[in-house]
Amino acid sequence: MKAPLTHTPAGDESRELCTQLLASRGVPLDQVAALVQRLQARFVPGLQLEECLDSVRAVLGKREVCNALLTGIALDTLAERGALPEPLQSTMLRDDPLYGIDEVLALAVVNIYGSIGFTNYGYLDKVKPGIVGRVDRRGHAAGRCNTFLDDLISAVAAAAAARIAHSRRDTLGAADPAAVPQPGNGGLAP
Amino acid sequence: MKAPLTHTPAGDESRELCTQLLASRGVPLDQVAALVQRLQARFVPGLQLEECLDSVRAVLGKREVCNALLTGIALDTLAERGALPEPLQSTMLRDDPLYGIDEVLALAVVNIYGSIGFTNYGYLDKVKPGIVGRVDRRGHAAGRCNTFLDDLISAVAAAAAARIAHSRRDTLGAADPAAVPQPGNGGLAP
Amino acid sequence: MKAPLTHTPAGDESRELCTQLLASRGVPLDQVAALVQRLQARFVPGLQLEECLDSVRAVLGKREVCNALLTGIALDTLAERGALPEPLQSTMLRDDPLYGIDEVLALAVVNIYGSIGFTNYGYLDKVKPGIVGRVDRRGHAAGRCNTFLDDLISAVAAAAAARIAHSRRDTLGAADPAAVPQPGNGGLAP
Amino acid sequence: MKAPLTHTPAGDESRELCTQLLASRGVPLDQVAALVQRLQARFVPGLQLEECLDSVRAVLGKREVCNALLTGIALDTLAERGALPEPLQSTMLRDDPLYGIDEVLALAVVNIYGSIGFTNYGYLDKVKPGIVGRVDRRGHAAGRCNTFLDDLISAVAAAAAARIAHSRRDTLGAADPAAVPQPGNGGLAP
Repeated sequence: MKAPLTHTPAGDESRELCTQLLASRGVPLDQVAALVQRLQARFVPGLQLEECLDSVRAVLGKREVCNALLTGIALDTLAERGALPEPLQSTMLRDDPLYGIDEVLALAVVNIYGSIGFTNYGYLDKVKPGIVGRVDRRGHAAGRCNTFLDDLISAVAAAAAARIAHSRRDTLGAADPAAVPQPGNGGLAP
Repeated sequence: MKAPLTHTPAGDESRELCTQLLASRGVPLDQVAALVQRLQARFVPGLQLEECLDSVRAVLGKREVCNALLTGIALDTLAERGALPEPLQSTMLRDDPLYGIDEVLALAVVNIYGSIGFTNYGYLDKVKPGIVGRVDRRGHAAGRCNTFLDDLISAVAAAAAARIAHSRRDTLGAADPAAVPQPGNGGLAP
Repeated sequence: MKAPLTHTPAGDESRELCTQLLASRGVPLDQVAALVQRLQARFVPGLQLEECLDSVRAVLGKREVCNALLTGIALDTLAERGALPEPLQSTMLRDDPLYGIDEVLALAVVNIYGSIGFTNYGYLDKVKPGIVGRVDRRGHAAGRCNTFLDDLISAVAAAAAARIAHSRRDTLGAADPAAVPQPGNGGLAP
Repeated sequence: MKAPLTHTPAGDESRELCTQLLASRGVPLDQVAALVQRLQARFVPGLQLEECLDSVRAVLGKREVCNALLTGIALDTLAERGALPEPLQSTMLRDDPLYGIDEVLALAVVNIYGSIGFTNYGYLDKVKPGIVGRVDRRGHAAGRCNTFLDDLISAVAAAAAARIAHSRRDTLGAADPAAVPQPGNGGLAP
């Protein structure tokens, strides 16, 4: 039997811990990968879910991402137990749009693959497709709280999409950037 | 006749300078205000364009915002003249989605009213409604460059929307946050 | 008798709540003001502690700052009670230098007055003068945790210093920036 | 003979381009590595300059870092030629402490290895040891401008230090974090 971790891991241990943590809150990785595929499909024709899943797993191997997930999900869970001091407890339970600290943590995740992920993060957090919307709705049930979780999922997906955009360019496009499908709109896009 | 400014202003001078700068790139303030109205209409029923315009003007009075606009628009203009060193010149002209520095400058603008603006910024930059889309398309004409401008407009609108969300709460909602229209989705205000 | 707050306030209520919160963790505002004076004394000769204290109070009136303090101090306190899940509990108690989320929250505070505060924040967090060092040392006693608190104090002081730098320029320097004492070193300085 | 790059590279090409760019502004990589060694020596006894240099080179292989250096150094150079519009031209030449966009670009560099680099960045930018101070002083000579360069060097060194802190933990410390030299002060690693 394994002793519990007492440090914040990176690499495989981080990936495993984050996967369990997300599963415990009802978020399977393939549904996060589906967000990545949705974001990138227009720019990388034929992009497979498996490549998106690999990219999500790579993001979850970063210590900074692990720390953000650990912290945000701990706060969500403590809010569900009524264990936070007021007025933080009510602010979290209400998912107050002026709270802002959920966006701050999300940005720390997005930044890991550079600023090109900001746009996709904002888009997912606003439009709330797929698992982001499901998590958000679940969090509004009585006694439930997903204030941080929906932002963190959006951030992980945006970071994984940025990672694919960077690595496609590195592989195909160094000599010929025109070979990489370009967004027509100048946004993050890829 | 006024001597040219040789410092980065704040307040009225900043507002005037930013307004001229945006006008010189074909961006009237009321079209930026229309973005704000679009973002907030769902949450502040009856929100008038005039209040949105006031909020845009307040954002343009901040020195940090003025510096970001001055810098980004200078880079766009220099790219149009072919005055930047390679590979920056080609990267800017192509509006390379992996450039990322346009998002970095935009974020400095958004931050002024706190992290609740991130989501709206990303949404505008991705969906490119109204003036954001027009600016982006103009920038893809031969010899034209709006690589920074579309991100900066999205950021100013997102900051102005965040400012309205904060100030509505301050006025109406301190004693009773339920009195403030809440987003059903847990996203920013909007 | 006042009912407990159930929302995150701004303005006077925020200021009062933050002041109590800091006092409950052994941080009097005048010791935070002393950090501001230390940072700015070189650039604003004759700067009084009272003006620094006013600037600290202005920073504490911002809702985003209040939310950051509420969240960070709640996490410190929960760690002291052993109420966090592992490995977050051990990471927080150990004040793990690779945690990083304390810096993320601090940055959200600093950003409120623009990026010119980054430098002073980093300096205070590294050198740990005055109350920052005392708070940090107290946090390393058995069963105590100030992992977030020292970063948050540094951030509030850096933001208050940035606020003074901006407002001095606005008052004295619009027409003549040379009238404002300039750092000789090109750093944030003010 | 090689054709000029017309895209922003990553990996070896980025490293080569950044090295040339820094050299053209009088910044040898080993002097940046010396900053890293200075930051980390207390926490990693026996840390060699060569390992610091490797870490600096790894940072320079990131596309986001390359874009930040290209952009910031282009602005410095254009200011030296008087090619920027007012009031940006005067603001840059004066290295105005309220400009702030230099800090914004620097932060984009630091973020690549997570938020634990913020503190070291701020410290270097404030204290200006070694090459940071030399670059800053050169930039204050008539007709010279290093407004962005000193911040970018500090950011590259801080990112390289964060990278060493993370990778030491990954190698030595996963099973036993106590085996990694810890800062006594709760600051970044270093």
